[in-house]
Order: sequence, then C-alpha cells, then structure tokens
Amino acid sequence: MITLLTDFGNRDGFVGIMKGVILNISPSARVVDLSHEIEPQNLSEAAFVLRNSFKFFPEGTVHVVVVDPGVGSGRRIVCVSAAGHLFLAPDNGVLKFIFADHPDAGVWEVTNKDYFLPEVSQTFHGRDIFSPVAAYLAKGLECRKLGARIRDYIKGELPKFEATKDRIVGEVIYHDRFGNIISNIPRIRAEKEHAVTIQLKNHKIQGLAKSYASGKIDAPIALIGSSGFLEIAVNLGNARQSLNSKVGDEIVVDLKEKHEKG
Amino acid sequence: MITLLTDFGNRDGFVGIMKGVILNISPSARVVDLSHEIEPQNLSEAAFVLRNSFKFFPEGTVHVVVVDPGVGSGRRIVCVSAAGHLFLAPDNGVLKFIFADHPDAGVWEVTNKDYFLPEVSQTFHGRDIFSPVAAYLAKGLECRKLGARIRDYIKGELPKFEATKDRIVGEVIYHDRFGNIISNIPRIRAEKEHAVTIQLKNHKIQGLAKSYASGKIDAPIALIGSSGFLEIAVNLGNARQSLNSKVGDEIVVDLKEKHEKG
Amino acid sequence: MITLLTDFGNRDGFVGIMKGVILNISPSARVVDLSHEIEPQNLSEAAFVLRNSFKFFPEGTVHVVVVDPGVGSGRRIVCVSAAGHLFLAPDNGVLKFIFADHPDAGVWEVTNKDYFLPEVSQTFHGRDIFSPVAAYLAKGLECRKLGARIRDYIKGELPKFEATKDRIVGEVIYHDRFGNIISNIPRIRAEKEHAVTIQLKNHKIQGLAKSYASGKIDAPIALIGSSGFLEIAVNLGNARQSLNSKVGDEIVVDLKEKHEKG
Repeated sequence: MITLLTDFGNRDGFVGIMKGVILNISPSARVVDLSHEIEPQNLSEAAFVLRNSFKFFPEGTVHVVVVDPGVGSGRRIVCVSAAGHLFLAPDNGVLKFIFADHPDAGVWEVTNKDYFLPEVSQTFHGRDIFSPVAAYLAKGLECRKLGARIRDYIKGELPKFEATKDRIVGEVIYHDRFGNIISNIPRIRAEKEHAVTIQLKNHKIQGLAKSYASGKIDAPIALIGSSGFLEIAVNLGNARQSLNSKVGDEIVVDLKEKHEKG
Repeated sequence: MITLLTDFGNRDGFVGIMKGVILNISPSARVVDLSHEIEPQNLSEAAFVLRNSFKFFPEGTVHVVVVDPGVGSGRRIVCVSAAGHLFLAPDNGVLKFIFADHPDAGVWEVTNKDYFLPEVSQTFHGRDIFSPVAAYLAKGLECRKLGARIRDYIKGELPKFEATKDRIVGEVIYHDRFGNIISNIPRIRAEKEHAVTIQLKNHKIQGLAKSYASGKIDAPIALIGSSGFLEIAVNLGNARQSLNSKVGDEIVVDLKEKHEKG
Repeated sequence: MITLLTDFGNRDGFVGIMKGVILNISPSARVVDLSHEIEPQNLSEAAFVLRNSFKFFPEGTVHVVVVDPGVGSGRRIVCVSAAGHLFLAPDNGVLKFIFADHPDAGVWEVTNKDYFLPEVSQTFHGRDIFSPVAAYLAKGLECRKLGARIRDYIKGELPKFEATKDRIVGEVIYHDRFGNIISNIPRIRAEKEHAVTIQLKNHKIQGLAKSYASGKIDAPIALIGSSGFLEIAVNLGNARQSLNSKVGDEIVVDLKEKHEKG
C-alpha cells in the first residue's frame, strides 16, 4: 500500500505519471491519494494532512510526500520508519508532526540510484526518485538499502503552544474545505468543557459544543474536531471567512471557571 | 466494490482517510470515487449524481454517500437495499431519487457499534462509521445486521413536476461542469421532438437537437442528455451563464404543434 | 491497465460512471486517472498531458482520451496502436504528438457496436462507447476487431517550430499548476547552455538554470523541464502571471555566444 500527498494538483498529469512509474515496478501496489491540492509549496498544510491520515492505513504502508520547493537543489530526500509506517519525503520539515510524536523514528538519506529511474530530471523527483523508491519499498525493500542513516535531518518547527494550569495558548494551523478553523490545542479535559472560554482575535466563545449541527446558524462554536484538536466552526457557514482567520492567529483557551457578577 | 460520494473536497485528506479505514478492514475492496466536489451540504446535487451513476456499477456494489450537515446531531444513518445495490447514507433525503424509483427498498437504521471504529468522533462519521460499515458490507455483511428495519425514513422532496397532454412543467435541477442546464423532464416522445417548444425564463427554444455540436455557437439548444432528462446547452459555450440559470427555475415544455400565422 | 484523460472535471460523477462501466466488463482492470481537469474542449492541453504521461505506463496500457467537442456529431472515434501502447480517442487531433512521434501508428475506426453499451446516447460517448471499448481492449481485444483500418485520420496541427544553426523559434504550449511556462523547444546541447539567450515577449533570460530553486526569488529563469522541453519559471513564484504568458506566445532562443562590448 502506498499513499501520495503532493501539491501537484490534479490537472497536469503529474500524479498519473507517478502512478504509472509505481505500477510499472510494483504492479500489485495499491495506491491511495491523500491530497494533491496542497497549496503549492505549503509544507505546514501537507504536514497536517499527513498527521491526520497516515494512522488510518495498515501498518507497513509507504507514505510519499512530495511538497518540495527545493527540488533539484542540494536538499536531501529521507526514508523514515516510525509508528510501523514508512515515510518518503524531502528533508524539509514536512514530517514535523511525525518526528515530534515519534522521537525514535529511524531516518535514512535516500541516495542509492539503483532504485531511481535511469534518467533523473532536475525538476520532477516525484516521478524520477520518489515513485520508483516507493514502489520498491512497497515490495519489501528496507530503508537502510537506500542510503546512510542520518541524525541531522530537519525536524521542522512546530506551531506555538503554551499551557499552564489556567490557560492554553495555541494558534490556527489549518482551515478545511468547510471553513472550519483548526488549532493545535488538544482535547480539553471533559469536566472543563462547559467552563472554558475560547478566544480568537476579538471573538469569544463560551464552552465546547458536541457537533457542528449543535450551533446556531451564523454563530461560531468551538468543539474538538476529528483531528483531536480544538476547532472553531459555524453551523452551515464558513468560520474562516466569518472570523477572517489566518494560519498563525493566536487562540487562547481560558480554563478558569468564571463567576461573573452584574 | 464500494463507491464514495461526498462533499469533502479533495484537499484535506478526508477521502484518503476513508479509503485507509476501508482497506484496513477489507484489503481487496475496489473503491471508486463518484464525486467529492459536491457543494458543501448540497443534498440535491449529491442525490442527482448518485441517481445517474449507481446503475452503471455491478450489482452488489456498496454506494456510500456522506453529505451530512447533521453529523453528530441525532440524525440517523441508513443502510438501503434497492435495485440490487446497497446504499449507506445519512437519513436526510439524499437518497430521494432511489426511494422514488424503488418504493420497495429495504431500509435499516445503522446502530450496531460492532461495525464502527472503536472511537467515534462527533464530526467525522465518514471515517468512524460510514467507512468501516461499508467495508464490512463489501465483505458480505447484511444490512439487517446493522440495526432495526425502519419505515419512517426521510424520503426527501422531489423537484416540481406536472405533465398534461399538451404541457410539461418541470424545473432546473442541476448544472454540470460544461454549464449544461439539466431539468427533471424525462424523454419526450420521438414524434413530438421537432414540434415542442421549451421555455426557461424568457428564452424559447424550438425543437430538440440531437447533440451539443449540432447547435449554432452561442445559441441555446435543447436535447435529451445522458441522464435521460431534458437539457439546455450552448455549443462550445456555457448555458448556465448565458441564460443565468438557477436550480429551481421553472422549465415549461409546450407539446402542441404550433401553426403560427403572420 | 487503463488510463483516463478527460475534460469532465471531478464534480459531476462522469468519471466515476466511466469506471463503473469499465469494472462491470473487466473487473480486474487497473484504472488510473491522468487528468480530468483539462480545460473544457481544449485539445492541445490534453494532447500535451498525454504525451508526457503515457510512456511511464507499462506496455499494453490502454489510454482513453475523451476531450470531445464533436460528441454526437459525425466525428469518428479511433483506436491507435503506437509505441507498444493503445490509444482510444475522438478523431480530432488530440493524439497529435503521438502521431508526430510515431508515423507508423496503426489506426482503426471504432464502429463495431458489439463492444458499445446497448444504448448509446448522443452526449456521453465516454460512458457508452469509450469505457466499454477500453474495458474490452484491456481484456485483450485487438483494435482491428473494432472497425476498418484508416489512413485519413486527423493528424492535428503541431505548435510552430523553426530551428536554424543560431536560432530556435518555438511557442508557449502549456502552463502547469505552478505557473511554469512550457514551450515546444527541446533540450539544447549542453555545451550551449550557458550561452543561450531566451526571449519571451520583452523578457530576456541569459543561460539555462539547473533547477527551480536555483533562481532568485521573483526573477524568471529558463531550464529544461521534466517534459524535456524548455520552460520558463520563477522560483517560489508564478511565471505565467509574472510574464503574462499565453499559449501560442513566441519564444526565441538565440544560440550564438554574445561578445558584447561597451
């Protein structure tokens, strides 16, 4: 099983070409698209989609990430073994959530041209390196056959996060197609849920909702989304637009129970 | 065989996650995408795409529809057996054309958590319920194992349609990517085809064409499209834009032969 | 193995329907999407994507192209054998690069209704003719069983190209998702690379770069792209927008070494 996550779009045939290369080498591979609509060269988007997705695939799946502004420069390619899965990606931080959650990950630099296409272009390593290497990995090749083990890979910068007893400060890390605003703030203890206040810019939301549909139409609600992170949503609306949210905006969760008086 | 029809888009990884869950449970399943670009929460679009598509798949195919504004609320999920196919969808009317064409459909409420993921979120039942249940159905599970048979499922509201001997009144129900305007008016008897007049707002079209290419460039034509319904099209143009058509706009077909005089 | 290349988009279910028809006839077929986001009825885009993609698939693959403004008119459908691959397309020039590179291609007109769906619409031959025929081809059917061999198929018009010892004149033939401007000018001899001047409208670029990342941000560079053709790119930018490039714009490569003096 191989998954593909790129910023190639679905118009130019790049993804189809990758599948052709893979199936030429490994005709029985199952190839699943995670996304090809990552904003061009947006490593953080790709990192977040990968984090949410990979663990729902069978162990041993090869996850290929090609969001690669440095293609053709000296940047390295890495093969990573973590959590029972394999990851093949440029060494540019796009695996930051994998590395943060799995500090014991094994990382190898991919240099062995035996597993590349015979002719390697300077501009499409997705076709010439990532696809054939992924096909061989899916057939059982071990990462260590691809090159030397390395320790100085790029771990990537995690979004800002601070937690004290009374307060969590995180930030907006993603917006999904429905306009839901997703933070890096993890699940809040259940007994606190009704008491918390969530603030994004000048918008304050009191308490956590259970589902999108439980909100009034047009009023923002906060809830724990399917990624396990705090989200801000608008029932039947688009929170990103309504709240003019941007990736990196600060989100503050106040955990203190308020006893406000008139 | 499993088909997927959602409003999830192809950017956020939601569809890839569903496939991961399915293939984890049923590694040999064939999964085919019908569409993931349904306008968010637009049940009528999804209903129409499903109606046109399902019958071209082998009998026994499991068709999964996740256009689900009520996710996490009390809305039910149904497993439906009709026309030799299985359908898994929220109980929100998105199967309205299936129910209208197959009043003998068997409908079961999906409540048996044995076939769900162990942890069910409030916001992504596509991953936590629809995908695993579909995988088990593809492996041969019967609908009746999922919950109780029900009769009070939501049949959904069909688009307006009236037919008399001389006149059919229907409405615009869909626009495709080419801008073709699709109505709910079925095939017209062949001997009437040259004589009919089709009216959409203040545009009148005389007679039915045989193909898109048979129209003059920029002039609207009417024809029976691949869905079996009357369409209005503009050869090498976009009828939706040219005629400013909206879903729900009335279309009137006058079947009387006209003998107009000067 | 079957590949699909259409202008159908991914919203309306057309592609899913084609896959249903194929898998009904040939349940073990592998179906790979090349692109469905070709601009509606843009034959040149489809021709270019096909040219870049097909050769990365195993020999014997059936490549189905449905960009077909003449559907339902008298236009023919052709089955083409070239370079060890099969191609199924309207006879409208969309295979122009295949025919140019393989003048020995075998071309048959597709007329044998035994391999069509029983009912053929006037508007969706992708479903009613291309898909079932492709499924039978993938199962081993020979082109010659589909109809008569023909010689007067439409070869299509290649983009303008003139080369002399000192100068190559070509044109812009495609823009990819990243905004890279792709010409029809093939690889330039390596010893010339530093000396050439590339001109697009009033933009002059000196020498060829090795990779996108080697350019200064915001300055256009020229390089040989993954298609084997000369491209103009902007590192971390969009060359198409920056240079206001249009398909058909002339690109001139001056191969003379310049010895300019003050």
